[in-house]
Amino acid sequence: MSSIKQVADRAGVAVGTVSRVINNHPAVKPETRDKVLAAIEELQYIPNEVARNFKMQKSNIVALLLPTIWHPFFSELAYYIEDELDRNGYKLILCNSDRKPEKELYYFETLNQNKAAGIIGITYNDIQNRITANIPMVTIDRHVKEEISCVTSDNYAGGRTALAELVGAGANHPAYLGFISQSYAHSEVDLRKQGFTDAAKERGMPIRIYEIPSDEDLMETSFAKLFASEEFRGTDGLFANGDLLAARYVKHAREHRIRVPEDVKVIGYDGIQNNDCFHPVLSTIRQPVEEMARTSVQLLIRRIEGEELKQETYRLPVHFRKGETT
Amino acid sequence: MSSIKQVADRAGVAVGTVSRVINNHPAVKPETRDKVLAAIEELQYIPNEVARNFKMQKSNIVALLLPTIWHPFFSELAYYIEDELDRNGYKLILCNSDRKPEKELYYFETLNQNKAAGIIGITYNDIQNRITANIPMVTIDRHVKEEISCVTSDNYAGGRTALAELVGAGANHPAYLGFISQSYAHSEVDLRKQGFTDAAKERGMPIRIYEIPSDEDLMETSFAKLFASEEFRGTDGLFANGDLLAARYVKHAREHRIRVPEDVKVIGYDGIQNNDCFHPVLSTIRQPVEEMARTSVQLLIRRIEGEELKQETYRLPVHFRKGETT
Repeated sequence: MSSIKQVADRAGVAVGTVSRVINNHPAVKPETRDKVLAAIEELQYIPNEVARNFKMQKSNIVALLLPTIWHPFFSELAYYIEDELDRNGYKLILCNSDRKPEKELYYFETLNQNKAAGIIGITYNDIQNRITANIPMVTIDRHVKEEISCVTSDNYAGGRTALAELVGAGANHPAYLGFISQSYAHSEVDLRKQGFTDAAKERGMPIRIYEIPSDEDLMETSFAKLFASEEFRGTDGLFANGDLLAARYVKHAREHRIRVPEDVKVIGYDGIQNNDCFHPVLSTIRQPVEEMARTSVQLLIRRIEGEELKQETYRLPVHFRKGETT
Repeated sequence: MSSIKQVADRAGVAVGTVSRVINNHPAVKPETRDKVLAAIEELQYIPNEVARNFKMQKSNIVALLLPTIWHPFFSELAYYIEDELDRNGYKLILCNSDRKPEKELYYFETLNQNKAAGIIGITYNDIQNRITANIPMVTIDRHVKEEISCVTSDNYAGGRTALAELVGAGANHPAYLGFISQSYAHSEVDLRKQGFTDAAKERGMPIRIYEIPSDEDLMETSFAKLFASEEFRGTDGLFANGDLLAARYVKHAREHRIRVPEDVKVIGYDGIQNNDCFHPVLSTIRQPVEEMARTSVQLLIRRIEGEELKQETYRLPVHFRKGETT
């Protein structure tokens, strides 16, 4: 097997230059880089990263902890996070927690053992006290500890926009529909309701708040109960705090012969639909998923490199995207 | 920091037993396991996997190489692959290749450096000769090298079923719609067309084959050309080789005032829809995604553990799922 010295000799550069090329260091001229890569190719040199990790006690692996990758919002987010990590020489370990606290903790512990460089996490559980401080972390949509940065969309502004758009589309009796929030983690998502409520108050407009369980079976029972209530059926503008919930509402509404958008305008949140082949194409508050992903990675890398970050929460702007439901 | 010896003393077992517990070895009694885990917890012992990897020159990381995680079929697949790996003590590194050969090769090379335990790959490129033989690999839907096992759905049977279902639903002029196949990798997906064609021949039924580019812009142009042809408009049963293509066809057909399913029955492939909130709910050939994922992982683990695998291609049964388009 070839050595790094042989590669340096073949390329006519110093050993340190070869090392910089291998580590994707920016301060290498393109033509030097090409020479080194050609020498690596010729000599079939394989730098042993495991050995290097051992020596340096660090890895180039970042873990992404998600409730589930099998969800259009999280898979789009993971797509851009992987892309941004890759551009910066990091690799992504994917962890589906399935919202189970024990699986999240198990992952934190094994990541600790593997000396992951950092973690980007979306957690639904109260794992605050179990997170050891020695792995840099960035969360998305959740506040875990004060010293951990949080990247999120501007949920409050999103809620305000939803109210304004529903009213603009003619709704006089708007309502908010969300999942009963878990007491565990302080979630940014609650601000969607807050923004919606505040905007209505400013207009002196009464609104209704409906919250149902996210469990599949309980959700169906809740919808049945909601549609049995005259008050709920009187809603003419609905803001659901996620697109899948909005779509679920539309389905049930139509089964009750309530027309969308004629009888009730509906706005979701997320913007998961990326084509117009499936209907309803929801009117929605679109999260800046790509920007959230790249910002999370950039913040994490700054933490990994030892920078103290001042600002705690990074709220990125959202926009309203009109579909077929308003 | 505590040592493995201290953990063994605290738990009242041998050092080897602690090691077996850490490595999830099956031959440890549950009560022994609990004692060891309690001692690990008490002493806050952190086994250094980086050091162990260095010593053993192997890792517990498996890489999943996908075109993109931002696709409902691949994200479902990745969900189950991560779950099965996790159950077996492995972690998943996610690689989006974006179908770019250079990114796939880059990943193969860096995985080699990191001494990944194995790779599960869906590749669209001719990287056959660049894959070094020393990482165990399983592919999905693609034949790369003879010695690499391939897990796939029974595409041929799926094609046959699609023809039978279209005819059963009343179609007399069935057609196949697919993407122009890349010459690179010998893809199992081509068997969907073969099964469809063979089943039609056996019935003495003429069919038409349409193949269009998968590039977004070219696809739109191709649809416009197709719908300009009287022959294409005469189709009364269409089998698309993927659900998203089927949905795209339905959208264009409706724009041309062709009713689905009244004028033309449509069947897709994959079964990506996991709810009935978005329409059309496609009639489709459902792939056994969970079983494909778990089988891939099980095969890979057998390879990692040194077993020679005899059978090359594992074709798992599909079934027809009726939706709103037949």
